[in-house]
Amino acid sequence: MKKFEEITTQTTPIYKGKIVNLQVDDVTLPNGKSAKREIIKHPGAVAIIAITNEGKLVMVEQYRKALERSLVEIPAGKLEIGEEPIHTARRELEEETGYGAHQFKYLQAFATSPGFADEIIHLFVATDLYHIEHSAELDEDEFVELLEVSLEEAQAMVADGRIYDAKTAFAVLWLALQQEK
Amino acid sequence: MKKFEEITTQTTPIYKGKIVNLQVDDVTLPNGKSAKREIIKHPGAVAIIAITNEGKLVMVEQYRKALERSLVEIPAGKLEIGEEPIHTARRELEEETGYGAHQFKYLQAFATSPGFADEIIHLFVATDLYHIEHSAELDEDEFVELLEVSLEEAQAMVADGRIYDAKTAFAVLWLALQQEK
Repeated sequence: MKKFEEITTQTTPIYKGKIVNLQVDDVTLPNGKSAKREIIKHPGAVAIIAITNEGKLVMVEQYRKALERSLVEIPAGKLEIGEEPIHTARRELEEETGYGAHQFKYLQAFATSPGFADEIIHLFVATDLYHIEHSAELDEDEFVELLEVSLEEAQAMVADGRIYDAKTAFAVLWLALQQEK
Repeated sequence: MKKFEEITTQTTPIYKGKIVNLQVDDVTLPNGKSAKREIIKHPGAVAIIAITNEGKLVMVEQYRKALERSLVEIPAGKLEIGEEPIHTARRELEEETGYGAHQFKYLQAFATSPGFADEIIHLFVATDLYHIEHSAELDEDEFVELLEVSLEEAQAMVADGRIYDAKTAFAVLWLALQQEK
């Protein structure tokens, strides 16, 4: 048995959406008592730390309806069913930025909101970038603006809140740490 | 009008839970077309980068039902209605770790899953820690184990996947970067 495991006694599906599903699990806790867990099921996603040949971090600004504001983020997108994360990463980088990358390195994965969602983000580092002449198009409900930002500027954007997205803040720290080494 | 703003034409409440609510918004896109946005409403949370007087990072291991595994995370917890984040931070640090802190500094806030949720985490740095003699108790459905980990070990845990939580990975990088300075 896993540490502090909560055993599911019943799963109640609540909603099946295009991006997320919601279910409520009845669980038995380690002390034998019962509790309910509200769980968002998400297909998972990729995000790409893409560094231009001038050493700038590639980011996109887009409107995030959940927050009712636009956010500056590293390129990212959700996995299609059965898709390998590396393929999603190449596709999303191309669609959102018009860049391809000769070098794609898998960095790590992490859970974004483990208290209520199973979303995992697979993080890649893309370097040796090139412009794609006829790049793939965005989804028809996506509107993004491309930004290329120096590390110094990106750190200022984290500090003053212009970067307000966890994966992007992580990417900026990661890049800063690389350059300290 | 905000950049790329999506105007809500209708909000359909789907579920009202203990932790999250789910709604579907019909929106008008910048190009005049329509789309649907599935949105998780969450009260927001705090997380605490707590550093012991020996320079170790305080973490807790707990079972995360959404992921069906236990995760090692920095102390965190959701905001109660109307609660100031600093109060939540003090309370959660005490409940989950038995530590108080003479120094509490607000670091920054970020969105964890802006593609589908409005959850914001307010991040604090707690130093000059002391043990609380009769510390507040955990919620009755919470089971956590305390860990105190050196920066070197925490970096190894990020690299090998034992740390698999975005805010915690951010905290480890943040601490590493502080020590480089």
